[in-house]
Amino acid sequence: MISILKKNIKNVKYKSYLTGSSFLSNSLSNPIPNSISNSSSFISTSSSSSLLLSKQATQIKQSYKWNSIKYFQRYNSSTTTSDKINTTASDKNNTTSDNLDTSSTTKEKISSPPSPPPKKSKWGRIFLLTSSMGIATILFIKLDQKYSNSPQQEFNDGSSLLSLKTGGPKMLKIASHLNDDENKKPKLVILGSGWGAISLIKELEKDKYHVTVISPQNYFLFTPLLPSATVGTLESRSLMEPIRSIIKDLDAHFLEAAATAVCFNDKLVEVAPLTSNSNNGGEEKEMKSFYVPYDKLVIAVGSQSITHGIEGIQYCHSLKTINDARTIRKKIMDNFELASLPTTTLEERKQLLSFVVCGGGPTGVEFAAELYDFLTEDLVSYFPAALRKEVQVSIIQSSDHILNTYDKRISDFAEKKFERDNINVITNARVQKIEKDHVLYKMKNTNEEKELKYGLCLWSTGISMIPFAEKISSELPEQKNKRALITDNRLRLKGIKDSSVYAIGDCSTIENPKLVEGLMKFFMDADLNNDGALAYDEFSKLVKKISKSYPITSNHLRKANDLFEEFDKDKSGTLELNELRDMLENIDKKLTSLPATAQVAHQQGKYLGKKFNQLALAKSTPSNPDLDDKLDPFNYAHLGSLAYIGNAAVADFGMGYTWMGGWSAVYLWRSIYFSEQVSFRTRALIFSDWTKRFVFGRDISKF
Amino acid sequence: MISILKKNIKNVKYKSYLTGSSFLSNSLSNPIPNSISNSSSFISTSSSSSLLLSKQATQIKQSYKWNSIKYFQRYNSSTTTSDKINTTASDKNNTTSDNLDTSSTTKEKISSPPSPPPKKSKWGRIFLLTSSMGIATILFIKLDQKYSNSPQQEFNDGSSLLSLKTGGPKMLKIASHLNDDENKKPKLVILGSGWGAISLIKELEKDKYHVTVISPQNYFLFTPLLPSATVGTLESRSLMEPIRSIIKDLDAHFLEAAATAVCFNDKLVEVAPLTSNSNNGGEEKEMKSFYVPYDKLVIAVGSQSITHGIEGIQYCHSLKTINDARTIRKKIMDNFELASLPTTTLEERKQLLSFVVCGGGPTGVEFAAELYDFLTEDLVSYFPAALRKEVQVSIIQSSDHILNTYDKRISDFAEKKFERDNINVITNARVQKIEKDHVLYKMKNTNEEKELKYGLCLWSTGISMIPFAEKISSELPEQKNKRALITDNRLRLKGIKDSSVYAIGDCSTIENPKLVEGLMKFFMDADLNNDGALAYDEFSKLVKKISKSYPITSNHLRKANDLFEEFDKDKSGTLELNELRDMLENIDKKLTSLPATAQVAHQQGKYLGKKFNQLALAKSTPSNPDLDDKLDPFNYAHLGSLAYIGNAAVADFGMGYTWMGGWSAVYLWRSIYFSEQVSFRTRALIFSDWTKRFVFGRDISKF
Ligand SMILES: Cc1cc2nc3c(=O)[nH]c(=O)nc-3n(C[C@H](O)[C@H](O)[C@H](O)COP(=O)(O)OP(=O)(O)OC[C@H]3O[C@@H](n4cnc5c(N)ncnc54)[C@H](O)[C@@H]3O)c2cc1C
Ligand SMILES: Cc1cc2nc3c(=O)[nH]c(=O)nc-3n(C[C@H](O)[C@H](O)[C@H](O)COP(=O)(O)OP(=O)(O)OC[C@H]3O[C@@H](n4cnc5c(N)ncnc54)[C@H](O)[C@@H]3O)c2cc1C
Repeated sequence: MISILKKNIKNVKYKSYLTGSSFLSNSLSNPIPNSISNSSSFISTSSSSSLLLSKQATQIKQSYKWNSIKYFQRYNSSTTTSDKINTTASDKNNTTSDNLDTSSTTKEKISSPPSPPPKKSKWGRIFLLTSSMGIATILFIKLDQKYSNSPQQEFNDGSSLLSLKTGGPKMLKIASHLNDDENKKPKLVILGSGWGAISLIKELEKDKYHVTVISPQNYFLFTPLLPSATVGTLESRSLMEPIRSIIKDLDAHFLEAAATAVCFNDKLVEVAPLTSNSNNGGEEKEMKSFYVPYDKLVIAVGSQSITHGIEGIQYCHSLKTINDARTIRKKIMDNFELASLPTTTLEERKQLLSFVVCGGGPTGVEFAAELYDFLTEDLVSYFPAALRKEVQVSIIQSSDHILNTYDKRISDFAEKKFERDNINVITNARVQKIEKDHVLYKMKNTNEEKELKYGLCLWSTGISMIPFAEKISSELPEQKNKRALITDNRLRLKGIKDSSVYAIGDCSTIENPKLVEGLMKFFMDADLNNDGALAYDEFSKLVKKISKSYPITSNHLRKANDLFEEFDKDKSGTLELNELRDMLENIDKKLTSLPATAQVAHQQGKYLGKKFNQLALAKSTPSNPDLDDKLDPFNYAHLGSLAYIGNAAVADFGMGYTWMGGWSAVYLWRSIYFSEQVSFRTRALIFSDWTKRFVFGRDISKF
Repeated sequence: MISILKKNIKNVKYKSYLTGSSFLSNSLSNPIPNSISNSSSFISTSSSSSLLLSKQATQIKQSYKWNSIKYFQRYNSSTTTSDKINTTASDKNNTTSDNLDTSSTTKEKISSPPSPPPKKSKWGRIFLLTSSMGIATILFIKLDQKYSNSPQQEFNDGSSLLSLKTGGPKMLKIASHLNDDENKKPKLVILGSGWGAISLIKELEKDKYHVTVISPQNYFLFTPLLPSATVGTLESRSLMEPIRSIIKDLDAHFLEAAATAVCFNDKLVEVAPLTSNSNNGGEEKEMKSFYVPYDKLVIAVGSQSITHGIEGIQYCHSLKTINDARTIRKKIMDNFELASLPTTTLEERKQLLSFVVCGGGPTGVEFAAELYDFLTEDLVSYFPAALRKEVQVSIIQSSDHILNTYDKRISDFAEKKFERDNINVITNARVQKIEKDHVLYKMKNTNEEKELKYGLCLWSTGISMIPFAEKISSELPEQKNKRALITDNRLRLKGIKDSSVYAIGDCSTIENPKLVEGLMKFFMDADLNNDGALAYDEFSKLVKKISKSYPITSNHLRKANDLFEEFDKDKSGTLELNELRDMLENIDKKLTSLPATAQVAHQQGKYLGKKFNQLALAKSTPSNPDLDDKLDPFNYAHLGSLAYIGNAAVADFGMGYTWMGGWSAVYLWRSIYFSEQVSFRTRALIFSDWTKRFVFGRDISKF
């Protein structure tokens, strides 16, 4: 990396006429578009230098002319169409000044009265100067991208809308064609805009399906960094990516609405637009539900925080949506402001500044860590120092360690770190009840009942099905799981025969194979020589076969020789039927379902995208279920779990590999999240947030 | 600017071992603090280079050792105090790894298992690389600042709170001392955290007063750019600056509460803390009002959008607070999403996409311009193209031009620009009534009644007093203005005798002098030779005197000889009493009150700050009203009005100087706003927002 930098600097040398832009053009040899190269002049604002600049810009532009023309036309046609339409001869001058800055700059220099030279502080100038170099670089790359792949689409007008037919069980309008298309490709409808849905969309190839994405949320939310948004380390908007910009390359459609039911017989999804309070003071406007027809349906609607099961849970905050993060952030500031008032008593103050987290999983732990960072790095320097003593962050965890799904060494490390930070970790405690201002919990070992006052309580354990998933589950007799929709290992919804409905992510769970039920078939297929017993080579072939058909078992079938030895109980050198049964039963018992993580949803989405691309190739109407059967089942590869614990990070890569550390770990943590990011935009925003925070601290404004 | 850049690049050459930090150390020759120099390593994440880096860092650090030690101690003591307290012998290792990254990096490199080298895209790397240079620069400057001027304050604990006495007319608690002080300086209480208040605070010198700022809003809002936040050109947070960080240098106190009344006799302000809904599902908590005592009180509570006077105004949005901007942004997105649904009829769609602005002043015009930019630059590329035709932005203006307080050439320019942009400008139209989905207006000239459907209607004309100001006004018989609190030309509230209460900004207006009432005194004082008539030299002295005492008249008294000629009607060569009366009456008629702008509030705050500094010097208890009388009255200097009209900006510098233009005007516009900004932070954030928008477009996520 250092060497790259050196090379770049060498490249720039003294050629940099255009502040930062030639820096770029050297290192990337991109053409400088006519209308865009001017933009770099916004860095220079004193009149003399801008005059200079525009001259030099003209020179440079000459040499890039050939490239520029093409570019200029494209740029113009996509952004200034309406300008063009309305341009009359009389105001030609003005139109030109909008597009061709060079000429107007010079002109204005002559005619403009005492345009006061803008005052700038030293910092301002340094900041502008240095940032401009970095920024100009991306700017050009992105503009290049932006305008080179913005197709000039032709659409028909909206009048076709009026011709929607009604139908389905509820006789609602059927959105058989959307705004701007009437194509005949198979209709792929994706419900949700979360991890699963987005990975699927990103994997899909263009023009294979007519894709419609339906979600009440018109953005993708980067959940792993959500805890950072609760204290302002990151801005909420940096974690959100507009779904419309994600689907753009695919020419897909987006409908902001919630799926409410599926009519599997007619292949229709019933969707309800969000009710909008029609205008400010006006009453809610009733919006009509309608049907969207599908050939293939993917359910990726995620889960919701549990809202019942413990008394008083309504007093708690949850952390699942962007609004949750916002509410928490506001509440923290509220409590600090209230605690600062001269009339707040010491006791009230202690309560206000007690932050309790129920649940010691990664989300709870990261929230506690972020909160601690915020308190020690930012708040103490703004709020009266007297408040500091009263601040208390607590975690109540039911099992005997926090991060208990991680390697033991990791929980230890985290617990020690928290102890040093004075974060109050209460393990082996079961929450009994939540009251308006305190949590009641019972120590598991001693049965002792205790209470803890709180000013903010985060409930961060447990998820449940959203009502829509519950409804589907209740309508299909094959669906028996109370926690999620069951799919086969090709992610097809159980109970639907024709491979037309899939479910991925948090809302789904893959049915475990029950190997033992296939015992006879396994045995007979494997027993090639029909001697009623499996020799080692027959056994090892069988193991490979099972492992391939049921990837989830592969971890347990890794070492065929060990297994053979273990289950060949009579040491006969072969495995008999009953011995194989024991083995299969043993494995069945070990199988657990996949965790509800972004990692799983992401891999499932990707798998499905690849599969759909293949299916579309194989047959233009992929309604034949057998095709799907021939493709590989879903195989989850665990890449490790990561958690941030406050100026330190921990990672569990599975199989006993763990990793933890101080500052450098944090940088690694951040870099991994960077590479996990879905888009360059998100990455850049998050990077800029982290920088902001480092330079200015977090924002303590409340809104 | 270009040459500065060249020099910097020359400086860097091949010395840049530490990615960006030595760039800085060369150009600014700052010491590299031990614990901070490591931070630059977060740019390099692959293990080999970070190892390299840490070695080189060690070398460099050696040479900076002397400087570093001091720095390191300071840095450490302010951020890792709690770490230190809890460090036991057993976890010494961990503590070291937090503070001294170099050692831990090396250590981890050996012990850590397969830390996967984070994948990065080409862009990611380029971005990191280039930005780091700019960022490292500010980073070091700021950190230097941050830790060098964070005083280690000593505070007493909060127990003194409990001893607050009760008193005043309502027998409430009196916050006679705040959290962490018991000093005897005169108590200056400032109500509000807007333009007026902030300018005052920034001007005040430390240790002259015990300052308390009271406002329901714990941030300062940069209103001139608020229209940009409605469409996401700027992020709301970039326009907000935490008040606590502004008052920090002054050691002032902040109370998040609203002033509800003032008891002028006892010199107590009654304040009400904001009610907080105590916890998520919990009921509202009743918060007790209390008194804050003052020696000097400044009322800078601003104004509110009018909420009455026209039927149906509750259906309109207003644009005054950050929440207004947020609601508008959400509503725009809502409407576009609804309009995209296949079941939305053409007529509904047209209504949804009709944006109406009532009021053609700068705010309305800027909103329309921003909206137009947003629609043409961003939305059209994401939403179905069919929507584009239906989008309509309209401005309804009662007078015959938009921007009618500006120079005629400016309104013309703006109107032409809007015409080209297809923005529907309706002038000479008076809004009669607003219905749920349409505006009714009447053409002034023809009396014709028309209606305009809307999906969003912004009401951007007219402000009124907030209830608190109204209450004060009603309690003082000297206050007769229905629109604002009246002050004298030293900004003292009319009706308070002892110079203890001031009012500035939107909530106040300076009483015009009524020169004619002083006629006799003026005349007699001026008539030095007592001949019953003023010769020209006597007259010109008088004019200077009046102009100095009543700065607001100075514009009209600029040319004494012209005035003399004009009003010496009998051409006697002298001005007689009746001629002087005519002149004074004429001037009285011309005087208007100052506009409700940030510029006025800013200058008033500054004036007051300077005065308070002087008063504190003159006497330790400045309760003597005469002192204030001796200082200069407030004098407003108009610096020009600026407006953004969509890829073009216009400015009116008064006295017939105007200025308008295309892109370069926009850059000037932006630079002026930069220099108007209150802080480096805000400036940097806004700059980064503009860059973001330029690179990525505006964010169309809705939340
Ligand atoms: C705070 C937090 C931190 C996390 N950290 C990590 C982590 O570090 N690593 C990790 O691997 N996982 C993490 N997770 C878990 C991860 O976010 C989820 O497992 C993942 O989001 C699941 O993806 P999904 O696509 O199934 O659902 P989601 O991402 O939740 O998306 C569901 C989508 O469905 C939409 N939807 C809802 N109802 C309907 C409806 N009726 N019709 C249509 N659409 C609907 C929603 O709007 C949403 O867009 C974290 C979760 C949280 C809350
Ligand atoms: C969209 C918009 C654009 C504008 N553009 C420009 C421009 O370009 N140029 C220009 O010169 N002007 C502009 N203005 C006008 C400018 O914002 C105001 O004139 C200026 O804010 C007035 O300053 P102030 O201090 O009087 O009030 P404000 O800045 O409004 O501040 C009032 C403060 O008082 C606080 N407060 C309210 N009630 C109470 C209470 N009961 N007790 C204590 N505190 C209270 C509020 O929280 C707030 O902090 C614009 C205004 C708007 C709305």
